[in-house]
Amino acid sequence: MSDEAATKPKRKIRHLGILTGGGDCPGLNAVIRGAVLTAAREGVRVTGVRNAFAGLLHKSYIQLEPDTVEDLLQRGGTYLGSSNRDNPFAYPMTIDGQQRVVDVSDTIISNFREAGLDGLIAVGGDGTLAITYGLSQKGLPAICVPKTIDNDLLATDVTFGFDTAVGTATEAIDRIRTTAESHGRLMVVEVMGRNAGWIALFCGLSGGADVILLPEIPFSMEAIAAKLREDRASGKRFSIIVVAEGAHLKGGDVVVRALVNDPTEPRRLGGVGNLVGQKLEEMTGIETRVTILGHIQRGGTPSTYDRNLSTRFGVHAALNAIAGNFGHLVALKHGGIALVPLGEAAKGQRLVPLDSDFIRVGRSVGISFGDEE
Amino acid sequence: MSDEAATKPKRKIRHLGILTGGGDCPGLNAVIRGAVLTAAREGVRVTGVRNAFAGLLHKSYIQLEPDTVEDLLQRGGTYLGSSNRDNPFAYPMTIDGQQRVVDVSDTIISNFREAGLDGLIAVGGDGTLAITYGLSQKGLPAICVPKTIDNDLLATDVTFGFDTAVGTATEAIDRIRTTAESHGRLMVVEVMGRNAGWIALFCGLSGGADVILLPEIPFSMEAIAAKLREDRASGKRFSIIVVAEGAHLKGGDVVVRALVNDPTEPRRLGGVGNLVGQKLEEMTGIETRVTILGHIQRGGTPSTYDRNLSTRFGVHAALNAIAGNFGHLVALKHGGIALVPLGEAAKGQRLVPLDSDFIRVGRSVGISFGDEE
Amino acid sequence: MSDEAATKPKRKIRHLGILTGGGDCPGLNAVIRGAVLTAAREGVRVTGVRNAFAGLLHKSYIQLEPDTVEDLLQRGGTYLGSSNRDNPFAYPMTIDGQQRVVDVSDTIISNFREAGLDGLIAVGGDGTLAITYGLSQKGLPAICVPKTIDNDLLATDVTFGFDTAVGTATEAIDRIRTTAESHGRLMVVEVMGRNAGWIALFCGLSGGADVILLPEIPFSMEAIAAKLREDRASGKRFSIIVVAEGAHLKGGDVVVRALVNDPTEPRRLGGVGNLVGQKLEEMTGIETRVTILGHIQRGGTPSTYDRNLSTRFGVHAALNAIAGNFGHLVALKHGGIALVPLGEAAKGQRLVPLDSDFIRVGRSVGISFGDEE
Amino acid sequence: MSDEAATKPKRKIRHLGILTGGGDCPGLNAVIRGAVLTAAREGVRVTGVRNAFAGLLHKSYIQLEPDTVEDLLQRGGTYLGSSNRDNPFAYPMTIDGQQRVVDVSDTIISNFREAGLDGLIAVGGDGTLAITYGLSQKGLPAICVPKTIDNDLLATDVTFGFDTAVGTATEAIDRIRTTAESHGRLMVVEVMGRNAGWIALFCGLSGGADVILLPEIPFSMEAIAAKLREDRASGKRFSIIVVAEGAHLKGGDVVVRALVNDPTEPRRLGGVGNLVGQKLEEMTGIETRVTILGHIQRGGTPSTYDRNLSTRFGVHAALNAIAGNFGHLVALKHGGIALVPLGEAAKGQRLVPLDSDFIRVGRSVGISFGDEE
Repeated sequence: MSDEAATKPKRKIRHLGILTGGGDCPGLNAVIRGAVLTAAREGVRVTGVRNAFAGLLHKSYIQLEPDTVEDLLQRGGTYLGSSNRDNPFAYPMTIDGQQRVVDVSDTIISNFREAGLDGLIAVGGDGTLAITYGLSQKGLPAICVPKTIDNDLLATDVTFGFDTAVGTATEAIDRIRTTAESHGRLMVVEVMGRNAGWIALFCGLSGGADVILLPEIPFSMEAIAAKLREDRASGKRFSIIVVAEGAHLKGGDVVVRALVNDPTEPRRLGGVGNLVGQKLEEMTGIETRVTILGHIQRGGTPSTYDRNLSTRFGVHAALNAIAGNFGHLVALKHGGIALVPLGEAAKGQRLVPLDSDFIRVGRSVGISFGDEE
Repeated sequence: MSDEAATKPKRKIRHLGILTGGGDCPGLNAVIRGAVLTAAREGVRVTGVRNAFAGLLHKSYIQLEPDTVEDLLQRGGTYLGSSNRDNPFAYPMTIDGQQRVVDVSDTIISNFREAGLDGLIAVGGDGTLAITYGLSQKGLPAICVPKTIDNDLLATDVTFGFDTAVGTATEAIDRIRTTAESHGRLMVVEVMGRNAGWIALFCGLSGGADVILLPEIPFSMEAIAAKLREDRASGKRFSIIVVAEGAHLKGGDVVVRALVNDPTEPRRLGGVGNLVGQKLEEMTGIETRVTILGHIQRGGTPSTYDRNLSTRFGVHAALNAIAGNFGHLVALKHGGIALVPLGEAAKGQRLVPLDSDFIRVGRSVGISFGDEE
Repeated sequence: MSDEAATKPKRKIRHLGILTGGGDCPGLNAVIRGAVLTAAREGVRVTGVRNAFAGLLHKSYIQLEPDTVEDLLQRGGTYLGSSNRDNPFAYPMTIDGQQRVVDVSDTIISNFREAGLDGLIAVGGDGTLAITYGLSQKGLPAICVPKTIDNDLLATDVTFGFDTAVGTATEAIDRIRTTAESHGRLMVVEVMGRNAGWIALFCGLSGGADVILLPEIPFSMEAIAAKLREDRASGKRFSIIVVAEGAHLKGGDVVVRALVNDPTEPRRLGGVGNLVGQKLEEMTGIETRVTILGHIQRGGTPSTYDRNLSTRFGVHAALNAIAGNFGHLVALKHGGIALVPLGEAAKGQRLVPLDSDFIRVGRSVGISFGDEE
Repeated sequence: MSDEAATKPKRKIRHLGILTGGGDCPGLNAVIRGAVLTAAREGVRVTGVRNAFAGLLHKSYIQLEPDTVEDLLQRGGTYLGSSNRDNPFAYPMTIDGQQRVVDVSDTIISNFREAGLDGLIAVGGDGTLAITYGLSQKGLPAICVPKTIDNDLLATDVTFGFDTAVGTATEAIDRIRTTAESHGRLMVVEVMGRNAGWIALFCGLSGGADVILLPEIPFSMEAIAAKLREDRASGKRFSIIVVAEGAHLKGGDVVVRALVNDPTEPRRLGGVGNLVGQKLEEMTGIETRVTILGHIQRGGTPSTYDRNLSTRFGVHAALNAIAGNFGHLVALKHGGIALVPLGEAAKGQRLVPLDSDFIRVGRSVGISFGDEE
């Protein structure tokens, strides 16, 4: 790597910055730890930037030493803090008493230089990738680590946090199952997944769901009701439906309008889980309860898989930053680490393919995806 | 015990029935197992009655042998099924195409005798206790085991399932905490507890909440907002509020009306957690998220404490039934097992006393209960 | 409390020290947090003393502010470090190249004063209590918080850490159970408990053990073998034995000698679990495996119960120290907090009484305690 | 698939047998469930064979219906039982009072036919694969599903049970870590892995170990001691070593002989973990404790990943058996299901490659593998 290192960067890398952006995700701290420990062994200093790009604007930094990150491996969340409102190209500010949106990207780049940083590791999702690519175009040397709990980034085969989220959701379904069993109920569990149904698919399969509703497969209420009636007829005493928050009706624009015929205030009525549950209770007469798992899916100690994937991402981000390979995303491809140019990285979403083996297997064990004729 | 056994029952007890009523609760299966294993050692047969009193009406039984209950200790829910709509004194039935409510208590008693049962162990909450007392008055020899996940029964110091529910809620708060920390948010967590706030109090303390709202202590939004502002001013970056579903505003009849000024359709707006979260975000400008834990609190493997308490209840229920000590509730008093006459057992609720040491301790570590002036 | 506070302490309490001694235990950090938060609200400063009394000798301190202890509630171990070799009355030291044991109690008391401390909160077991009592006799104002994972302290009804340890052990037995079941094996699980068998009794009951061996009930190999044979004869396919590390044979001085007839090097052969397992495999021909749970029982996140008990102990220790009620142990009596004079606190062990309801209940569900004739 | 199904099997498949062999593993029950549910939907009957091939010898069967397998997804162990002493080509029997080893393969094949079975699904490791291949050569139509908790089978990229085992071991290390931290100790944790170090590598990385010892990388005590001394010198207060049970010294045949100079009875001395711990305490003077995780690694509820992989294996085994694709192993290759001829399947072990990215990443975060010069 010494050849590459000699040619690529204008100067030797001695000081890296690191920040975490977007929604939190189990494994962020393990990325930070991996990067800091690796840099320390290479004699490179690491400065943490607080609250994503907002920290570069407000010069809010923290020195990261090996003993600072010692016990971060097991901790959920992000030690550096994060933000969802920190886009330097459209930063929300109050100027002369008025709320405005300002381009602060030049300030951020000059603050970056003033801090003596030679490169930036930015850990984040779609938004963070796009911002970093923009800053990169303006001369900021940066390397990205992908993060999305929904596992829906096309540039990498897997993202950290997903395995933990699926595990948390499965554990919740295991608990809900005992209630369903005791009362002969239909339990509807709504999980995360606006555009991609990976979480619903995986926790539905592992939780023994009878019906799984994904954004990728529009459903009909009739198909679900038919499945439930059939199961009861064959002696099954209870039912579990896992529904991704982005699942929607066949033909309908959005589930809310289609289901309740009240287009004016859909937000007041709650998520698709509530609507599906309510409608099915009416259609089948089966006593129904709904649980929206919500934020517990994002938190907690990362699973072994996520700790190790995060550590790999952090280590390779640091090694590549030190080697001057900026302008890339660190990704997982076929089990190995690969570098993807930032310009390509933010393109496209990894949805559940309709011919996925997980869907085929689901149908084989009798799961309905709500699309049966 | 042989003397008592000789005088009390008219005949030797050879065959017991057991049923579980009301909402499910971790530990119900351990009660069943404890009773069946104990009876087996005493040479007494046990028949399980399915779906609470409905099973006695429909003669839906299952023989319970030691190997049937072998692996019930760890399992949540109830092997026998339960029901919330099985009151024999007001049983919902469709007669001549019309929904009616009928007194089927005599049928149930005659079915009980026809099945050759010498006594009944009924495990359940308020409702089940009242029903069993009623049947008992009409001659059914029965012994009750108390069950309420809210831990609010006056007749016993502790009920099983509570420790598990508090543990599940605490684990959820631990997860939510990492998100709160990463984003500097206010997280509101709504837990079970309509009349008594034991779950909220215990998981709030152990989850490190900043505010705990109990049904026993009416709150003011101003007090909570003041606490949050004060915490932020002193440098705290995030906040957690635990709110029992039955918590309500000072002076208001119900929280819903008071908070939203919309008395017509409060149900459509969701629980007190949503309302408190929404209002506080408006009042303080702090980014807020709400999680309603819901049914996950009822399910799952019982904790060690609950397994052991349930086993004790099951064993003592069987021993007392065999000794003919009918008409009692098996309770925990000062750590030991005690018998409470059924007539007294259903009286009163065990609320959190305002001078509870847990509340005092909470205030000492800086928790607000929303009632500060 | 103002009257007491006015009469008892010579001067107003402004500055407290806190240390943790002996083996680590889930909940120690929650005690520290409870004490620091409470003191902060009363305007009292708290200094942490590192590594128990060794820290007072070496003047190794750390300031504890509310935000230092913010995230200690969930963390196992002790933030302050501990030590087993720190008895000030017999401190191991190398003097002139020779290992000696020295009385450094005067130095410790003068260092305590030099640090400007007005009182000490010492959290620990038998050893720490005895030391603190000794220093107390020499004028050090101290209040103790009891700690023993074995739950065997006579002065308090319950100690923190015990519930967590029992939970961890139960979870391990749940795992081991599936292996036992699959292979029709006898699994022997050795748990902590040198003198008192509380852990073995509680996790044995909740893990569904067939045999539980406690230090309080000497066992015979014949009784256990008979129980195993009987179970197999009645169709049971697998067996689980939980044995406390201090369990021993009837009549034998120590289990090791009695079982293996090799008095010379018993230590090389491992614990009582291994011996019992080996012997039973020989006696019954049943395939047997042994697991020594060891240190995993001490670690990890404290349970809800332990977090709350620890917080109560920490809060009341601080309140009483501030009120000048030194020379006491903070204890739990009948569910409430009580103060026990230090002179009485270290006396006696809380063993499992032979007429304990838990033993009676165990026998009722068919558990052998190895003492049957 | 109808064409294949028409040409390959002599007759239509109407009835399948299924058995589980070798050591138990989380996910076995999910394989059974996946196969039974799939077969049911295809109108194919499934008979469970108890205790591996012993069940075919003793005609010990159980009918498996969809509702039999309903709640198997979450359960560890195997519902069908297993055996390690059931090789039909060398079956241990007592004949005329003498222990002999007999070839019962013909009996097994004729029992298989007598039971009306058209094909067999055999779930197991090396041993089971070899046996099934042997029976297959003699005409038994069979399909295999790979099982090894060590993840060391060359024919498949991943085996189920491994993720759960690594998770359990990581959780144990997390607990042990808090003790290490509190006392400044060296904690040695021995995990499974006789020939391959996958478990040690993965749980060592995710548990934040300082040293990981694998069978694939012979270690020197000096290298480890040097690492520990260096860490202490740089201020690290505690250390964790994860050692696979099959790890061994550089140059030595076996660790036991090399370490203790006592070649006669190595078994009495315990595992490599004890030896490494003992030796390091002598060499470095650091207080050391050893934990052998043992059987808890095999048990418990399977993780989400393992439930889903097992379900896929079970479903595809059934689909392929029904299609008559016998003589194959169902494997995972590059994330998809593949069929491997049985003759090739049992060849070779999947060891940790020395250029594994996990090892590189481990060294980057400062982990020693005991092989440094």
